[in-house]
Amino acid sequence: MNYRMVFYIIGYILRIEGGAMLLPALTGWIYLEEEGIAYVIAAGICLFAGTLLTIKKPKNTSIFAKEGFVITSLSWIALSIFGALPMLMCGDITNYASAFFEVVSGFTTTGASIITDYTNISHATNLWRCLTHWLGGMGLLVFMLAIIPMSGGQTMHIMKAESPGPVVGKLVPRMRQTAGILYKIYFALTVVELALLVISGVPFFDSVCYTFATAGTGGFSISNAGFSEYSVASKVIITVFMILFGVNFNTYYFILKKKFKEAFTTEEVIWYFVIYFISVGAITANIYNAGLFDSVPMALHHASFNAASVMTTTGFAISDFNLWPDFSKFILLLLMFIGACAGSTGGGMKVPRIILLVKNVKKGLMQVIHPRSVKVVRLNGEKVDHETMRMVNVYFMSFILVYVVSLLLISFEGMGITTEFTAIAATINNIGPGFDAVGPTGNYSSFGSFSKIVLSFDMLAGRLEMFPMLILLVPSTWKK
Amino acid sequence: MNYRMVFYIIGYILRIEGGAMLLPALTGWIYLEEEGIAYVIAAGICLFAGTLLTIKKPKNTSIFAKEGFVITSLSWIALSIFGALPMLMCGDITNYASAFFEVVSGFTTTGASIITDYTNISHATNLWRCLTHWLGGMGLLVFMLAIIPMSGGQTMHIMKAESPGPVVGKLVPRMRQTAGILYKIYFALTVVELALLVISGVPFFDSVCYTFATAGTGGFSISNAGFSEYSVASKVIITVFMILFGVNFNTYYFILKKKFKEAFTTEEVIWYFVIYFISVGAITANIYNAGLFDSVPMALHHASFNAASVMTTTGFAISDFNLWPDFSKFILLLLMFIGACAGSTGGGMKVPRIILLVKNVKKGLMQVIHPRSVKVVRLNGEKVDHETMRMVNVYFMSFILVYVVSLLLISFEGMGITTEFTAIAATINNIGPGFDAVGPTGNYSSFGSFSKIVLSFDMLAGRLEMFPMLILLVPSTWKK
Repeated sequence: MNYRMVFYIIGYILRIEGGAMLLPALTGWIYLEEEGIAYVIAAGICLFAGTLLTIKKPKNTSIFAKEGFVITSLSWIALSIFGALPMLMCGDITNYASAFFEVVSGFTTTGASIITDYTNISHATNLWRCLTHWLGGMGLLVFMLAIIPMSGGQTMHIMKAESPGPVVGKLVPRMRQTAGILYKIYFALTVVELALLVISGVPFFDSVCYTFATAGTGGFSISNAGFSEYSVASKVIITVFMILFGVNFNTYYFILKKKFKEAFTTEEVIWYFVIYFISVGAITANIYNAGLFDSVPMALHHASFNAASVMTTTGFAISDFNLWPDFSKFILLLLMFIGACAGSTGGGMKVPRIILLVKNVKKGLMQVIHPRSVKVVRLNGEKVDHETMRMVNVYFMSFILVYVVSLLLISFEGMGITTEFTAIAATINNIGPGFDAVGPTGNYSSFGSFSKIVLSFDMLAGRLEMFPMLILLVPSTWKK
Repeated sequence: MNYRMVFYIIGYILRIEGGAMLLPALTGWIYLEEEGIAYVIAAGICLFAGTLLTIKKPKNTSIFAKEGFVITSLSWIALSIFGALPMLMCGDITNYASAFFEVVSGFTTTGASIITDYTNISHATNLWRCLTHWLGGMGLLVFMLAIIPMSGGQTMHIMKAESPGPVVGKLVPRMRQTAGILYKIYFALTVVELALLVISGVPFFDSVCYTFATAGTGGFSISNAGFSEYSVASKVIITVFMILFGVNFNTYYFILKKKFKEAFTTEEVIWYFVIYFISVGAITANIYNAGLFDSVPMALHHASFNAASVMTTTGFAISDFNLWPDFSKFILLLLMFIGACAGSTGGGMKVPRIILLVKNVKKGLMQVIHPRSVKVVRLNGEKVDHETMRMVNVYFMSFILVYVVSLLLISFEGMGITTEFTAIAATINNIGPGFDAVGPTGNYSSFGSFSKIVLSFDMLAGRLEMFPMLILLVPSTWKK
C-alpha cells in the first residue's frame, strides 16, 4: 500500500472541498447570516489540512487497483468527516452523528435527511447541503482528475473505483480529457436547468439549490413545504431533468459529436426509458383507478414525477406515495433497486447490471435446455467478457450481504419491518425516502447514532458500488 | 422432446399417487367417515389415468437434460392436479383453486394452508395432507427411481432435476441404489420419530400426521390448537427431528457405513449447525430481554423450536413470532432464505449455496486487491467447477426475478407490504407461515384464486429449485 500517495490525494480532495465551502460562506455573507462564519472557518480547516498533506509530492507516485479503491473510499470518508463540521459549528445541526449522516447523504446524493424543521436552517447550510449533491453526483475524484495532471495508468484505477456502472467507458484515450468532458456536460446541463427553473417562477436561491439537488440526483429539500408551493410547470421541468441526469453521460457526448447512431442505440439507455415509461403507465393506471386523483393527467403528473424521482434515485416527492396502493409501492421499490444508467449521477444497481442479470438467467436456462449450445452475453452489441460478468455477480452478492447485515444491525431500533427494510433500500440505493416512518413525509431523525453510522456506511457503499468500502474491512488490504 | 416418455413417466407417478391415496381411504374406513369414499374414487381415477398412460412402454426411452426437467415439473403439476380432487370431492375444501393450493403446499412441503377451521376436516383429509408432505419431502420421482428399473443415464437427469442443492451427490455408482438407500434412511428416521412421539404422549393419529409433516419438513397443522396442547417433551422431540430432517442424508449414509470422518466434517452440515445455534442464541437473548418469556430456558425452548421450524422450512409454530422484536423477526426471515442442507427434505436456498455465495464474494474482493492472484473456491475440500458456480449464480438471479414478478402479481390483493413480501418468502422457500396476515396465527385463505395460482407456482419453483418450472415458460423447450 502506497500510503504517502493515498494521503497526498486525500489532501488534494480536502483542498477542493475547502474551496467549495467558500460558496456557502459567500451565501451567508449575502444573506447577512452569522452561520456563514462557520463555513469560512471550516474552509480554512480543510485548506490547512489539505495543504499540509500535499506539501510534498511523494517520490513514488505509482498506484495499483488496490490503492485506487482505498483512495476513493478514504477520500469520501474524509470529505464527509470535514464536510460535517460547518453544519455542526454553526448550530444548524446539533449532534455530530447527525451532521455526518446528513453530509454523507449529501455527497452520496442520497438526500435522506435528519432535519425535521427547516424554519431555522440558514441559507448557507441549505446551499452547502445541495452543493454536496452536485459535487458528489459526478464524483469529486473525477473532478480532481480533470484539473490535476496525473499519469494515465493511475487515474484509471481511481476513475474505475469512483464511477458508477459495471464498465467504465472511456470517451477519449486520455482519462483527464474524459473527466473534463464529463464535467463540462454536467455544468452545461446544470446551467440550463437553473435558467428554466428561474423562468418558470421559482425564486433564484431555491432554483440554485434544487438544480444542484436534481443534477446530482440527490433530493435534499430546503423548506418544510418542499415543492408543493411551486407551479406544475416547475415540477415538470424537474421531472425532465431528473430523467436527463439519469442518462449515461456518454450519450450527451455522442450527441455533441453528432454521432447520433451511437447516442440513440445504446442498449442501456433504451431500456432505461422503456422501464421508466412502462412503470409510469402502470402506476398512473393504478393510482387513477384507486381514486387518488381526479383526472388522468394529474395521476400521470404525479406518477411521472415520483417514478423519475425514485428511478434516478433523486428522492424528491410531490405526493405521499406511502399512501398509494401496494402495486404502485412495489413498482417504486423495484425502481429503487434498478436505479439509473451507468455513467450518470443516479444510483441504485444500475440498468446495465439488471440487463446483464436477465441475460445471464436467459443464457443459463438455454444451457439447461441445450447443454451443448454456446451462448454469448452481449451488451450494446459487444461481448461481455467473463471477468465483467463475474464482477457483476460478485457485486449483487456483496449488495445482498451488506443489505442483510445492515438490516440486522438497525433492527434494534424496533421501528417496524417496512421502515427498516426500506430505510436500507433507500440509503444503499442512494434514494432518500422509503416507506412508513422514512416515507416522503417522514425522515431519519428518529434513528439512533449507531444506526446513523450503519446507514452512512450503506450510503457510501451504495454510491461507490460496494468494493471500495468492503475492501476497507479486509485485513489483507492493509498488509504490505 | 420425447413426449411419449414424458407421458409414460407421468403415468407411473399417477399410479404411485393412486396407491398412496388408499392410505387416507383406509383412515376414512377406520374412523367411519364418508369422506373416505372420495379418496377411494380419487385413487381409482389416478390408477386408471396412470395405467392408460403406461399401457405401452415407448420404444425410444432415451431422455436428455431437457426432458429430465420437463418430466419433473409436469409430474409435480400432475400430482397436484389429481391430488386436489379428493379434498374437493369430499367437501373438506369447497373450491378447486384452494384445494390445488393446499395440495401443492403439501407436496412441496410448504405447509401454507387455506383452512381456517379444522373442526370439520376429516381424518382422511388430514392424513392425506400430511402424507403429501412425506411423499414430497424426499421426492416422488426419486421414489419411482428406487422401485422401477430404468437405465442409468436417464435416471440421472431426473434425479438432478428433482433433488435439492447445487450438486447431486451419488452415494453409490448406480442411481437406483442411491434412491433406495435414501428412502430407507428416510423411512427409518420416520419410524423412530413416530415411536418417540407416541411414547411422549401424543395420540397415535396425531403422531402419524405430525411425523409425516416433520419428516417432509412440511408443517401442516391438523387441529385449531396445533401443538399447544402437547407436552414440552413432545415439542422438543419435534425440534430435534426437524433439525435432523434438514441434514444432508448423505451424512446418515456415511454414519451407517461407519465413515465418521466424512460424516462429521462435511462443510455444509457444520455450517448448518453453526448458523442454527448462533441464531438460537441471538433470538433467545433478544426475546428474553424483550420480556416475552419469564425464564431463559423457556425463551430458549421457543427460540430453538421456531428457528428450527423456519430454517428447515417446516413451518410449525408454537408461539406467534409475529409479535417478537424486529431483530428476531429479521433473523427468522434470514433463516427462511438460507434454508436447510442440500440433499435433505428442507427447502430455502440451501446452506451450500449460501456458502458458495459468501466464498465467491470473498474471492471477488481478493481479486480486486490482488488482481493477479488465482483463488479457487472449494466446498467440502473439493474444487467447485466453473459450471456449478455459474449455475448457482443463475439460480440466485432466477430466484430474485421470480420473487419480484410474483410480488407485483399478488400486490393487487392490497394486503400490505409485509404480508405480501413474506407470503412470497414463505411459499418460494417452502416454509408456510410469514408475518402479519400470513403469520403463525394467520393463513392464506384470504388470497384470491389468481394469487393462489401465483403462490402455487412459487411453491413448485421453490421446491424444484427454479429451472424445471422456468423451463416450461421458454418457447424453445417445446420445439423439436
